[in-house]
Amino acid sequence: MLSPIQRFIDVFSRLPSLGPRLATRLAFYIVNQEKSKREELISALSLLNNITRCERCYFLKMDTAKVCDICGANNRNPKKIAIVEKETDILSIEKSGSWDGHYLVFGQLPEHGVLETEHKLRLSKLKLRITHELQGSVDELMIALNPTTFGDFVASVISEEFKHVAKKITKIGRGIPTGGEIEFADEETLKSAFNRRI
Amino acid sequence: MLSPIQRFIDVFSRLPSLGPRLATRLAFYIVNQEKSKREELISALSLLNNITRCERCYFLKMDTAKVCDICGANNRNPKKIAIVEKETDILSIEKSGSWDGHYLVFGQLPEHGVLETEHKLRLSKLKLRITHELQGSVDELMIALNPTTFGDFVASVISEEFKHVAKKITKIGRGIPTGGEIEFADEETLKSAFNRRI
Repeated sequence: MLSPIQRFIDVFSRLPSLGPRLATRLAFYIVNQEKSKREELISALSLLNNITRCERCYFLKMDTAKVCDICGANNRNPKKIAIVEKETDILSIEKSGSWDGHYLVFGQLPEHGVLETEHKLRLSKLKLRITHELQGSVDELMIALNPTTFGDFVASVISEEFKHVAKKITKIGRGIPTGGEIEFADEETLKSAFNRRI
Repeated sequence: MLSPIQRFIDVFSRLPSLGPRLATRLAFYIVNQEKSKREELISALSLLNNITRCERCYFLKMDTAKVCDICGANNRNPKKIAIVEKETDILSIEKSGSWDGHYLVFGQLPEHGVLETEHKLRLSKLKLRITHELQGSVDELMIALNPTTFGDFVASVISEEFKHVAKKITKIGRGIPTGGEIEFADEETLKSAFNRRI
């Protein structure tokens, strides 16, 4: 195999959902493109270098910006903060138009285990944000972690830790997803769906 | 959405098997990597610019090389030529170790229709190769196009056109693939498998 192709496969097959088979296919596809198309890919990839984390909420921002678009927006309520695991969770929530507050990107949780230093750091940062910028309290802290056993445990730890600086602490609702079937829902989901009936 | 991320999604979702969902996931994954990992991806992608086509067989070669590794190898038989559709077909055949001759990459065939100019050009190039470099004839021309109706039609066109310059013209064998089940084989495959019984 030509060494640039081998190198491409080695490096790109490490990306999630890619693997050696698809990486090989991509390598040959890209080689067969016009040079200008390849340059387009290179430049799109290089542009990602201009992105860093918002130091306030850990969402992404342009490195030239002071804070991210959400922290910087003046039509959002900074006294409402949703804690999510991943940046892409924010994209989904924003697309649904169901939150006009700010966020904290908490970092992905392992399936079980303990909180990492980074998670703890982000929680202390959030506390500092509430103390220094928000007069010591928020109106709502919404915990939108993925509903796993460990996620639930972490949610209760966070609730406990923030109960004196949040007027209201909420968790994301659980139930049958739209389009889902009651027949196939697991016991825990059904229990939540009945308890939270509207 | 931050513009570099949007740009990445636009450009990378055009690649085969990627699509906007996976491209989005990759963008966020890559942004979350160390800068050195991103540079590794950029450099692996840029290296593909050093690859061009072998003018003899249309396989890929380094642009600094005169011909591809296969055309340049001195332990292969240039009087045996296999016609394949794609470069990746060569990789699969080479991995199987079942061919010690040279190749012609013919280009992917549409499902039906007519041969494109590029296909015709490559066939004339092959004829020139046989006339100028191989004393006007090869020992075997093996047609390894994908076994579709149009592929079979093209194979017969090639057979006709090369019958005076090839001592033997063969086609890739058909039958039940290893691990396949007779019960689920289609009629045409079964017919071939019975006709070519060994």
